[in-house]
Amino acid sequence: MAQKQDKQKKPAKAKDAGKAEKAARAEKLRTKELTKAVRAKADKAVEVTKATAKSAAKKAKDFEAEARRAQEEYKAAKATAKAVLKVEDAELAPEEAKQLVEQVAAQIVAAEAAFADAPIPDTVLGELLRLKPGAPVDLAAIETAATPGVENRAQVEAQLPALAARVAELQERLYAAAAGGDSKRRVLLVLQGMDTSGKGGTVRHVVGLLDPNGTRIRAFKAPTVEEQAHDFLWRIRNNVPEAGQIGIFDRSHYEDVLVAKVRKLVLPMHIGRRYNTINRFEKSLVDDGTVIVKCFLHISPDEQRERLLARLESPAKRWKYTPTDVDDRMLWPDFQEAYRIALERCGTEAAPWHVVPADRKWYRNYAVLRLLIEALESIDPQYPPGDFDLAAERERVLES
Amino acid sequence: MAQKQDKQKKPAKAKDAGKAEKAARAEKLRTKELTKAVRAKADKAVEVTKATAKSAAKKAKDFEAEARRAQEEYKAAKATAKAVLKVEDAELAPEEAKQLVEQVAAQIVAAEAAFADAPIPDTVLGELLRLKPGAPVDLAAIETAATPGVENRAQVEAQLPALAARVAELQERLYAAAAGGDSKRRVLLVLQGMDTSGKGGTVRHVVGLLDPNGTRIRAFKAPTVEEQAHDFLWRIRNNVPEAGQIGIFDRSHYEDVLVAKVRKLVLPMHIGRRYNTINRFEKSLVDDGTVIVKCFLHISPDEQRERLLARLESPAKRWKYTPTDVDDRMLWPDFQEAYRIALERCGTEAAPWHVVPADRKWYRNYAVLRLLIEALESIDPQYPPGDFDLAAERERVLES
Repeated sequence: MAQKQDKQKKPAKAKDAGKAEKAARAEKLRTKELTKAVRAKADKAVEVTKATAKSAAKKAKDFEAEARRAQEEYKAAKATAKAVLKVEDAELAPEEAKQLVEQVAAQIVAAEAAFADAPIPDTVLGELLRLKPGAPVDLAAIETAATPGVENRAQVEAQLPALAARVAELQERLYAAAAGGDSKRRVLLVLQGMDTSGKGGTVRHVVGLLDPNGTRIRAFKAPTVEEQAHDFLWRIRNNVPEAGQIGIFDRSHYEDVLVAKVRKLVLPMHIGRRYNTINRFEKSLVDDGTVIVKCFLHISPDEQRERLLARLESPAKRWKYTPTDVDDRMLWPDFQEAYRIALERCGTEAAPWHVVPADRKWYRNYAVLRLLIEALESIDPQYPPGDFDLAAERERVLES
Repeated sequence: MAQKQDKQKKPAKAKDAGKAEKAARAEKLRTKELTKAVRAKADKAVEVTKATAKSAAKKAKDFEAEARRAQEEYKAAKATAKAVLKVEDAELAPEEAKQLVEQVAAQIVAAEAAFADAPIPDTVLGELLRLKPGAPVDLAAIETAATPGVENRAQVEAQLPALAARVAELQERLYAAAAGGDSKRRVLLVLQGMDTSGKGGTVRHVVGLLDPNGTRIRAFKAPTVEEQAHDFLWRIRNNVPEAGQIGIFDRSHYEDVLVAKVRKLVLPMHIGRRYNTINRFEKSLVDDGTVIVKCFLHISPDEQRERLLARLESPAKRWKYTPTDVDDRMLWPDFQEAYRIALERCGTEAAPWHVVPADRKWYRNYAVLRLLIEALESIDPQYPPGDFDLAAERERVLES
């Protein structure tokens, strides 16, 4: 009976076995596909992490070498400082020499202290550099080599990676809020200053930290014939940043009350009217959602001389020099006076002026970066939520 | 007599002594001033080098940590790869399993070889990625995940610092040749590709390496009412780079033969005419000194699906998603066909097209950077000598 049952079931069994075999084969194929996919991922991970490790190790080596080099230079610099002291000892009265020794010793101690981790104090830099709207301006009283808000360069360098990450995130949020939402907020950075004050350098080092997708830079040179045929704000209005953008003006409408005034390119009467025109224009931008950050890069005439000479000396820098730079330099007091008036009359609550001490390039870059971050923080841009049905869209993508 | 002589000379001697004393005092003061200046420089050097050493040491430490982390991840990835092999051993026929073991082993050996310094071969990448003008185009035959010209990511990462320095120097020369000389040379980078193909990412990572002072970026979106009222090249012409600049188009006039064709925004007759119009326009730019680098960022539909899903998943990326992305995705074959025709008809000797495999972001960035460098090298820009009397200008600066 068992046999009979077996025989009777055989065809059914064979069918089942066929089905099972087929299912097993299908299962095996699926497993094969799956493992193939997983293996591809594992291989990719091996490749990527190996590359990361290699690149990081190389960078570590480079920076170690740099640190060693800098340490040696530091020793050399210390030796120079000591040698200078000896000269002073020989040339100066004992009392004076003693005082100098103490002074330099204190400075070396201070420099050494910079090795200790010194976080940047939680001050708002804008408050330190901003000119009080309506108050008289005395540029000569503001030190061009000062570093308000920070002790030394080491302190700033240690903070740079964090500041770069911060500005990048804030910029992305600003851009996202306009592109994916309906925010009209934007930032306009205005850079003014004498020749060699570092407008271009600020663009390279500070604006270079930003995402070019959301940045709009415009350098204003002597106006073209077409620009001259319009009112002086025409070319400015055509170049203000769009919603979500950070706009940068390398020179600006202020040239029309600076060089225009000093070189007497227009009648004094017209210059006098322009200050109010500028204030009204800037106010309208601010009312429409723009935060304006106006920076006067403040250098000394001595620093300018050194920088002009450096431009002449280096074949790779000579193209930055034009003989008219010296013509302007000879009118230094006139330009400073024109700046004083512009900073005084156009330093408003809506768009105040900042004086950035710019003899030290590292401080200038740091200060402008901080001012930019503080402007973005005042906006506090947020990622937009997206005005679509998330689950439905996920479904659509998966099905497409 | 000696006494007498002395007495007679005394008043004269006293005068001399007074003069000498005065001169000595003046000399001492000058020395003091000089040593003060030298000391200030020495102090500055001490401060700066100490800061450099500190910052470099910190960076070295960071990168060492990163290298260690990556090494651990690499081990983990290797373990995963091995585990996958075991699964395969169990599920697959012995012959197949053996083959797989050998395959993965070979891949691990290859990944390990990446640790050895492997300089990028001295190939011209443009020659590998350029479409032959006039030849038929078959996009399906070009691998989207390929990496022509390089073996792996590690090889590229190791070269990046050198490539970044190279593009920066070439860009400065290009800019200098126009600003300080009379060169009209310029570069125009045109980025085209489906949604998520990485146009924005290329701008962020590649254009982010450039000096913003000499860069002009324009993202072309759906034309405004004003733009629509003009011919389709009007907004393009208004945004081509100036002499010395590198211009970047994120989308371009090609949209007018791509989306315009697929979405039937204009009559087919007009589309047909546009290819020639584009060729003539580009030729005129090239004749006037522009090097045009046209890149089609080539991704697979699977890669696009993953990237769209990633945008939906992350709240920080969701703003990049719009439901129309999927509408376009559903027309994938139509868009590929429109691209094929555009690449075929507008791939000219004057301005050839490059197909950049873009499934791997690191390769896409590397390839566009290399193409940009090769374009700049073809110009070979030089620092201008300066058309002024160097000695005379040095004198003028020193006297001012």
